[in-house]
Amino acid sequence: MARVRNFYAGPAAIPLAALEAAREELLDFAGSGVSVMETSHRSKEYDHVHSETMSLVKELMGLGDNYKVMMLQGGASLQFAMAPLNLLGEGVSADYILTGSWSQKAIKEAKIIGNAKIAASTEQDGVFTSIPKQGDLDLDPNAAYCHITSNNTIFGTQWKNYPDTGSVPLVADMSSDILSWKFDPSPFGIIYAGAQKNLGPSGVALVIIREDVLAKCREGLPTLLSYKTHASKDSLFNTPPSFGIYMMNKVLHWLKDQGGVEAMQTINEEKSKLIYGAIDGSNGFYKNNIAPEDRSDMNVVFRLPSEELEKKFVAGGLTAGFVGLKGHRSVGGIRVSMYNANGLEAVQEVVAFMKDFAVKNG
Amino acid sequence: MARVRNFYAGPAAIPLAALEAAREELLDFAGSGVSVMETSHRSKEYDHVHSETMSLVKELMGLGDNYKVMMLQGGASLQFAMAPLNLLGEGVSADYILTGSWSQKAIKEAKIIGNAKIAASTEQDGVFTSIPKQGDLDLDPNAAYCHITSNNTIFGTQWKNYPDTGSVPLVADMSSDILSWKFDPSPFGIIYAGAQKNLGPSGVALVIIREDVLAKCREGLPTLLSYKTHASKDSLFNTPPSFGIYMMNKVLHWLKDQGGVEAMQTINEEKSKLIYGAIDGSNGFYKNNIAPEDRSDMNVVFRLPSEELEKKFVAGGLTAGFVGLKGHRSVGGIRVSMYNANGLEAVQEVVAFMKDFAVKNG
Repeated sequence: MARVRNFYAGPAAIPLAALEAAREELLDFAGSGVSVMETSHRSKEYDHVHSETMSLVKELMGLGDNYKVMMLQGGASLQFAMAPLNLLGEGVSADYILTGSWSQKAIKEAKIIGNAKIAASTEQDGVFTSIPKQGDLDLDPNAAYCHITSNNTIFGTQWKNYPDTGSVPLVADMSSDILSWKFDPSPFGIIYAGAQKNLGPSGVALVIIREDVLAKCREGLPTLLSYKTHASKDSLFNTPPSFGIYMMNKVLHWLKDQGGVEAMQTINEEKSKLIYGAIDGSNGFYKNNIAPEDRSDMNVVFRLPSEELEKKFVAGGLTAGFVGLKGHRSVGGIRVSMYNANGLEAVQEVVAFMKDFAVKNG
Repeated sequence: MARVRNFYAGPAAIPLAALEAAREELLDFAGSGVSVMETSHRSKEYDHVHSETMSLVKELMGLGDNYKVMMLQGGASLQFAMAPLNLLGEGVSADYILTGSWSQKAIKEAKIIGNAKIAASTEQDGVFTSIPKQGDLDLDPNAAYCHITSNNTIFGTQWKNYPDTGSVPLVADMSSDILSWKFDPSPFGIIYAGAQKNLGPSGVALVIIREDVLAKCREGLPTLLSYKTHASKDSLFNTPPSFGIYMMNKVLHWLKDQGGVEAMQTINEEKSKLIYGAIDGSNGFYKNNIAPEDRSDMNVVFRLPSEELEKKFVAGGLTAGFVGLKGHRSVGGIRVSMYNANGLEAVQEVVAFMKDFAVKNG
């Protein structure tokens, strides 16, 4: 069938140009006579993709030479454990700021491994509708790090002003908003992201680490769980997930061609204004209960007057050529995920559908 | 350029039919209007692929209902740590049989985590040219498990008769010969394999675990490192490497269409006879110093009279349309990796080239 508008929260839409480029050379990669899936990770053809991908990440994010880029396996979920394994030795603790289900999962792993404290939480009766303000944070100046989830895919909130943790390095799960807006990376000791939202297919986790934090990582860990292993071998200690990295390379090239992160931010803010405008202008037909300054530009969640109407909305969306509008199974409702690969046009279309649906069912 | 013969040791050749099927639907998977890379891992389209892949593994390997199939990330290298993390608690130890570089890496991880003993090693002056005989094994009847590497990609040896460990479960790294021949799986507690040799692209590790061994796995591990997590959630606790699993599904369908593991075994034995015949019939021009009964049917390693001739052989092979003939960087020489996707014709071609090269350079 024809390509549809893809609003899945992840795995999510990938730029068409990246998919078409991959299809074009799927049987013959870089004139090698084999697929990129079939080439040795030690071949010169693959090596070019691998090292260029790390360079593109540094370039697009404006990372200095004091950052190492790694491309690992296990998704953000394994990073929930790897960060504390590497940084939470005896006698130290880490701060965690809880803003949703994913940060709850992150602190759960940290507590299995070492000493982790809740520096703030916006949970109320099991739901999270805001991001804490600086004054709400109970920060430990001696913490090994302070962990945040930059964007909350399930509850639809996003950090727009990262917390000031002084000299304590920030560690952030940026799975769902990496490369969607420009920010100063310097307070971050570790940034990690599962690829399957803004970077490419699932199966690759991008992990960025600052040299001073890397130097403090513990020794004696299982080799594959040590950041030092992967950083020192440029993510080639063992066979990397080469096809996923190759797709990430294609997505990063596309992003650069679009004008980079600044251009993405402009479009993402426009998309955001458009859809929240439609929600707020619906006379209460669509309800988003997130503090306006904390609303996510990536995952827009809202409710309709009844679950029945929500089902009708999802079904009507499917007929109109939109997939992935159903909210996360833990919270219900509607969710429109609009990562970089979903351009303004996709959001204009879904907003037109929303307006029409509200008129017909309001 | 035209497709070439691919003798890489891994990532390695993938059946052309699998690649073509993936290319055909790369932009529109199962009539969903999105790529398989872009679809939610909770969608019905992906779920079909995911569960069918596990069923195909069970069917093709003849696994009973007492086995769970998992599809994880981190490759065999992470399994080197996960097996002992899950099974080596206080007061128990595991036996390791060393037959090459990969089993050395496996025991290194086990020793970081718990108590691991060498039950046998065929190492002599840093090289391994055979597989131990039953009488050579110093087995601990109380071991939690006994670990073997079923096929040694670097040294070119392969277990043809698995060791008898009584009631101690075997744990095997079968990365490089899984699904290449028929064997009785019942003595195995865990079988694991990185996909990038006989199963598909890198980025997926197949892990098969027997229920009684699963029941003995430790509690309190980081969630992603626990076999119980993945087994209980059918490898959907977190986002799976969905594209890699999809490709594995295509490869398994191809394998079934070829007549299954028995048919593969027949072809693999024929390929093996052909190439070792060429080596042994070369009047010493090609030398393979592996004990004949332990020669690998998957990775054939040999030397030429000089390193200069070896370089000429690799270069001549490239011109003739063969990639990946260079031996592993740690040992040098020539290596012809002939996994399932390299049919009889590929090996006939390389053997013809070998004969011609020996005549011209002998």
